[in-house]
Amino acid sequence: MTDSPRGAARTEAIMRATLELGAEIGYAKLSIEAIAARAGAGKHTVYRRWPSKGALLMDSLLHLHRSSLDYPDTGDIVADLRTQIHAAVDLLGNPPFGPLYRALIGEAQHDPALAEALNERFIAPQTEMTLARLRTARDQGLLSPSLDLDLAMAVLSGPLYFRFLITREPLTHEYVDRLLQSLFDGMGAR
Amino acid sequence: MTDSPRGAARTEAIMRATLELGAEIGYAKLSIEAIAARAGAGKHTVYRRWPSKGALLMDSLLHLHRSSLDYPDTGDIVADLRTQIHAAVDLLGNPPFGPLYRALIGEAQHDPALAEALNERFIAPQTEMTLARLRTARDQGLLSPSLDLDLAMAVLSGPLYFRFLITREPLTHEYVDRLLQSLFDGMGAR
Repeated sequence: MTDSPRGAARTEAIMRATLELGAEIGYAKLSIEAIAARAGAGKHTVYRRWPSKGALLMDSLLHLHRSSLDYPDTGDIVADLRTQIHAAVDLLGNPPFGPLYRALIGEAQHDPALAEALNERFIAPQTEMTLARLRTARDQGLLSPSLDLDLAMAVLSGPLYFRFLITREPLTHEYVDRLLQSLFDGMGAR
Repeated sequence: MTDSPRGAARTEAIMRATLELGAEIGYAKLSIEAIAARAGAGKHTVYRRWPSKGALLMDSLLHLHRSSLDYPDTGDIVADLRTQIHAAVDLLGNPPFGPLYRALIGEAQHDPALAEALNERFIAPQTEMTLARLRTARDQGLLSPSLDLDLAMAVLSGPLYFRFLITREPLTHEYVDRLLQSLFDGMGAR
């Protein structure tokens, strides 16, 4: 979608208003009307661009945090994973991103189109960046050639999302480090 | 709460109607009015017992599936985990439980009281049963004394919930087996 400079500024203002208001009153109470008023836009302007509150929240979160999860490559795969996952849990574990991202995932459970968009636009690119970093390390001989990279991804991210969405236990750096250690040193199950 | 036999039958009818209607039309379209009508009860009867649609759905799911996830103990810890987790993914991956449980978790992201109740009444008891089974195996010398049981639980369940709630990839027995193998044989990261 191409915007005039004024259109782009308005779009940006609407997305900022979504995150601000969402942080203040929570997703459940958020309305398109209130967002439009905060942004100084008409509500039809908002509806013209976003079909639902969930779609607007997703755009707002992804647009305003797009550079937060870029992947480091210092040559040390364990250190880079640690840096990246620490940054991810700092984002997930704190406002404004954390509670609004949780609400977005909640909404996606009732809205398959939103779930698909979230996967395509956020989860899949994040996963692909991590897999690319793991592949590089494997090609450099830093990881075993037999390592199942998809499973490694799942073992690193699944437990964090389980805490985030289900048990709501804190997402700490220490927990990330335990997960990384279990992946790299094994869990000594037997 | 103590019920007369008639009260208990009515409660059961309301919970059955919730799951039936939920399976037919989906959680989003489900209303207390329609559930009451299907169960032949007044809607005030429903509201008197359940504060919200989410609370009613949770009771209905937990009551009607309460015996599905009992824990086997054949003496073979890997076989028992496999049996139990295969049963869990069969439940999660199929109607009526799967889509309604996904909707319940979605609702819990907007409703902290529901999230807490889900943890207390379903997640925590399930986790405790699995941990008890793992502890028995450890005490029998079948698992390493140094195994971090909480982390083992997280590595087994987190990736399944990640698929269930985020990527919506299929929950297959084959995937469960890969997770179990990674836990017991290590992932050979390096």
